[in-house]
Order: sequence, then structure tokens, then C-alpha cells
Amino acid sequence: MQPESTVSYTRLKAFIAEALTRLGLPDTDATIVAGLMADADLQGSDGHGVTRLPHYARRIKAGGFNVRPDIRVVREQAGTALLNGDNGMGHLVMKRATEIAIEKARTTGIAWVNSQFSNHAGPASLYASMPLPHDMIGLYFAVGNANHLPPWGGLDMLLSTNPIAAAIPAGDENPIVLDMATTVAAYGKVKTKALRGESMPEGWMIDRQGKPLTDPTRADEGMLLPLGGMEAGYKGYGLAMIIGLLAGTLGGAAMGKDVIDFNHDDDSVTNTGQAIAAINIAAFGDVAAFKASVDTLIRDIRGSSRMPGVERILVPGERSHEMREVRTRDGIPIAPALLRGLNTLADELGMAEL
Amino acid sequence: MQPESTVSYTRLKAFIAEALTRLGLPDTDATIVAGLMADADLQGSDGHGVTRLPHYARRIKAGGFNVRPDIRVVREQAGTALLNGDNGMGHLVMKRATEIAIEKARTTGIAWVNSQFSNHAGPASLYASMPLPHDMIGLYFAVGNANHLPPWGGLDMLLSTNPIAAAIPAGDENPIVLDMATTVAAYGKVKTKALRGESMPEGWMIDRQGKPLTDPTRADEGMLLPLGGMEAGYKGYGLAMIIGLLAGTLGGAAMGKDVIDFNHDDDSVTNTGQAIAAINIAAFGDVAAFKASVDTLIRDIRGSSRMPGVERILVPGERSHEMREVRTRDGIPIAPALLRGLNTLADELGMAEL
Repeated sequence: MQPESTVSYTRLKAFIAEALTRLGLPDTDATIVAGLMADADLQGSDGHGVTRLPHYARRIKAGGFNVRPDIRVVREQAGTALLNGDNGMGHLVMKRATEIAIEKARTTGIAWVNSQFSNHAGPASLYASMPLPHDMIGLYFAVGNANHLPPWGGLDMLLSTNPIAAAIPAGDENPIVLDMATTVAAYGKVKTKALRGESMPEGWMIDRQGKPLTDPTRADEGMLLPLGGMEAGYKGYGLAMIIGLLAGTLGGAAMGKDVIDFNHDDDSVTNTGQAIAAINIAAFGDVAAFKASVDTLIRDIRGSSRMPGVERILVPGERSHEMREVRTRDGIPIAPALLRGLNTLADELGMAEL
Repeated sequence: MQPESTVSYTRLKAFIAEALTRLGLPDTDATIVAGLMADADLQGSDGHGVTRLPHYARRIKAGGFNVRPDIRVVREQAGTALLNGDNGMGHLVMKRATEIAIEKARTTGIAWVNSQFSNHAGPASLYASMPLPHDMIGLYFAVGNANHLPPWGGLDMLLSTNPIAAAIPAGDENPIVLDMATTVAAYGKVKTKALRGESMPEGWMIDRQGKPLTDPTRADEGMLLPLGGMEAGYKGYGLAMIIGLLAGTLGGAAMGKDVIDFNHDDDSVTNTGQAIAAINIAAFGDVAAFKASVDTLIRDIRGSSRMPGVERILVPGERSHEMREVRTRDGIPIAPALLRGLNTLADELGMAEL
């Protein structure tokens, strides 16, 4: 078996930035997107980092992204804004949206910003985590960029994996960071399985007859199961719908049958919608006391007695914090198929291979 | 088998109001709580309506509720408030909290109100739905009043079923109303099964060895499974934790090991926390256009082709809307055991039986 290559965060970020610059993004924008994409890989969000670069490149070349967008606020109240992303890369749009939310929440206590004409922005946790250094809670909602989820009991793909992320500051402990698709598995994970040549566990997807689908290369023939699975999947379906309404419909972005499948369409404007909320902890009480309570909760949970066979109780985000440390030290692994794809792109763009 | 009695909404509300008045609540407060409790029964939230009255009465008599609370805002910013419920009944606290959120969202676009020193307030959907007539979206989060959920892989009951509710206005269609516990089943449903003498399906609860528990009278020996079940329950666990942090910790209310099990404790102050957000649709775009988009989505979903054996695709809240119609027409069924309990209470309070 061919060993996986590893690459440092710095090298990966520089590689992505150079590729994006050569594809037409301004230097500053390329650096921002590259940083967020490399952050995704660093924290173990393998389905949302550099693995997307060949696809992004294809889309840019096909005219599907605006590489020089005029990202602008089109509606605003004291605690809200609607940001038109002008079909720029979603990372740029949602970084800006989050900055606006943080700024507003300083005075209003809470702020909520929707995007329209945005695009895929990588892992939800990146944006939910941005308010943390400001002693704020972040909540993030997004409409996924391909519908792989039918309504509960249905066959028509009207919903996506619409993720939710939440980030809560702690004191001495690492922040709590939840980032979850409202399906049993995110579609990015299906893609990663395909890329690695692995099969999926039963329960991730079903075919149109309702039978388990475990071959990720046949993903197009099936649908994801909503969170709750065969038993309580109506809850995951409900969550996916609500998140889509909050992140998409509320901001005039695509939702339901209007969602473009960007895996099979390189040039249509996706009109992707996301929403970010920032909640200022100081608006509700003493920040230090809040953080101390979060620390206590984390320690109580970590110290819980365990079911037979369980070695360790994890808090949401703990694996990502650890992965960030491990990969900062050891480098980021790049699967052989991905490395070939990235180096083909590098050749096309006339730049050094990874 | 003994047939279930039915009672009209008006009669049920009057019965509850009289009981609460005799228990010491001011008339106005008793009427508000009775209305919300009867609303719960009317919409089919059987675990959260009049079934709770004997328990509430016991708690009031034991001094566990403050029947003359001074419910007051203790912190406030333009888009936020923290409401101290002074240990009053949760219905009073969260109705007030929601009114404040609606008022603030008119100017800020979004508002978020936390409660502290509140109590059990009935079904989450009641409060999430209050912003609807104001063309606002409602989001509600609560810390449950008994910990029946351990962390993922753990045995210590550190979390509750912490529910989330969301209500989205539609145009010609009924609003979309999601109301879900973050466990596979809400604990109220377990209680209802016990009251009805029925067993639970596998997958609702497990015992401390991880084996299925289906006898609801043995509920104290086991724990609820988080949404996602054995397969992806870490997601439900993460959601329960985040909701508890937002609804409890943020407002200085009980969370984690500080949560009082009000099934086994009638007199301690629970310091229950809830959070309500109101999002003003007009802050993001044209309200009529938004509602038309929601109608379209509902119709697309309802019209989806179906899996074999599925007769109908439901939108979240649809069953409650229908139940409200049916029970308005036919009356609200009261199980024999519940009726006996209510009439025992009526005798104790020297008022007419139901």
C-alpha cells in the first residue's frame, strides 16, 4: 500500500494561495481562502479542505465563481445584515459576514447575518469559531450545495445535509465546538470514502428501494439518511428543513428544488445561503463566571463513569483540537489520489507541485 | 377496556385555571398558565399539558414554585435580555420572555432572551410559535427538568432531553413548526407510555449495561438514547449539550449536574433556563416573498414521490395543526389514570371534578 504523503500547514496554505492567485483571485482574497481551506485540513475536516481545490479550480475556469466579487451589505438593522456575496467564494463571504455579526453583537448583544449569492465555504465550525476570541458564542447554519436528502418517507432530493455548528468559549479548557450535518453522515465524508477506496458503513445511505447502500462510488444512485436514521429520521429531516429555511430562504438564497448540485454543474450561480449568529456573553452575565461554568461542565462530562468498553468520553470539538496539534507537529496527510489531482492542477497552472 | 373520556378545550382550560387559582396563583396568571397548558393538549403535546397538573399542584403545595413571582429583566441590551423568573411557573416566565424578544426584534431585526430561575414551561413549540403572527421566526431552547441522558459513552446522567423548537411563518400554508427533544424520545413520552400502561419501542432507552429498556415503569433504571441512537448518538449528545449551554449556562441557570430532578424533588428551586429568539423576516427581505417561498417548499415536499408503503409526506408541525382541528371539534381525550388523578386533585381543592 502506498504511504500517504504529508505536507506542512504553511506549505499547504501557500500552495492553495498560489493556485487561487493563478486562477484569478486577488492576492488578499487568495490568502484568506487558502488559510481557511488549510485550517479545515489542519483540524481534520478532510472533506472540506484542499480536497475541494480541484473542484473549485474547475468551477473558476468554467466561470462558476466570480473571482473579483463586490461583496456588499444589501439590508441592515441594528442586529442583522444581509450580505450579497456577488457569487464570490463562500469563504470570503462568510468571513465578512462573521466579522459584521461580531461587530454588531458588541452593542446589541446578539447579531445575525445571512448571505445570499455566496458559495461553498468549507467546514461550518470555522465560522462558528470566529466569535470565540471576542468572548462570543457562534452559531452557523448553511444550505448544502447538493440535495442528497429527500423529505422523510420521500424519494425526491429536496434537501441537503444542511449543517449546524456552534462554538462556546471555555476558560482553561478548549472551547466546545459542535459541527454536524443533519444527515447521519455528511456528503463530504462519502466523497472521502470514495477517494480512499473504502466502503461506507450501513446506515449512511439508502437506495431508492430503501436498502442500505455502502459503495460510495454509487452515491449518485442513493440518498443520505437524515440524523435519527430509520428510527427517528423525521427529526433530522425537520432539522435539515429548518436550517435550510434559516440559512437559505430567509436571505433570499436557494433552498429546496432551487439548490444547484455543484458536483455536476460548474458554471451556474449557486446562490448559496448561510447564516451566522454571534452572541455576546457579556450581555447576559459575567464572562469569567460563564467560562468557569463551561469548564466545570466539560470536566464533569469528561469524568463521567463509562459504559463497558468505552475508554474515553469526548466533548464536541475535542478531536479537532487534538488533530490540530497532531497535524501542526506531524503535517497534514494527503491521500495519493488527491495528491495526483493537486499536482495535475499545479502542472496546468504552471506552478510547483505539492 | 375503559373508553377514554374527552373534554372540551374551554372546559379543560377553566378546570386548570380554577385549580391554579385555588393553589394560590393570581387569576391573571392562572388564566395564562391554564391557556398554555390546554393549548399543549389541544395540539397533541400530551406529555406537556394537563397531565402535568397534579405534579405542579404537588410542587406548589410543597413550596417548590413561587405563586406570586416578581418576574423581572435583570440585564438588557438592544437585542437581548435576561429575565429572572423568581421561581414562578415557567409558562409565565417564557410568555413574558417571548413578548420581550418580539418587541426588541421589531427594531433590531433579531432578539434573544434568556430566562433564569424559571421552571418547566410545557411544549417548546408554544413559545417558538408566538412570534409567528408578528411575521417573525421563533427559535426556542430549553434545559429539561431532569437528567436522563449521559454523555456519549458515559453512564452519569449529566444532560437532559434539552429540546429545540423552531417556527417559520408560511403564506397560505400552515406555519412550519419543529419541536423536538434531542433524545430519540422525549421523557414526557416515556411518562405517557407509563400512564397508558404501554411498553416503549426498542431504541428509546437503554439500561446501564447498554441493553434495550422497554418497560416505562422501569425508566428510572435506564437512560434515554440521544438523537442518532446507537449509530450517531454523539450528534444528539452534542446538540443536547449546546442547547443546554445556550438555554441554561448562558443565562446563569442550572445545567449539567446542577439540574434538579423535579420528578423526585418537590421543593428545591430548579433555576430552570430557557432561551427564545425572535427573527424579524422584514429585516432580511420582503415578507410576502418569503412566505411564498415557504409555501412553495411545503408544496414541493408534500408532493414528493414516496418510498414504497408511505402514504403521505408530512411537514414538521402538520400533525399538530391537524390535531388542533380534530380536538377542537371532538374534544381532548383524557386517559383514565390521568382523569382519576385530576379528580382526586379537584376533591382536595374543593372544586368540581373534570
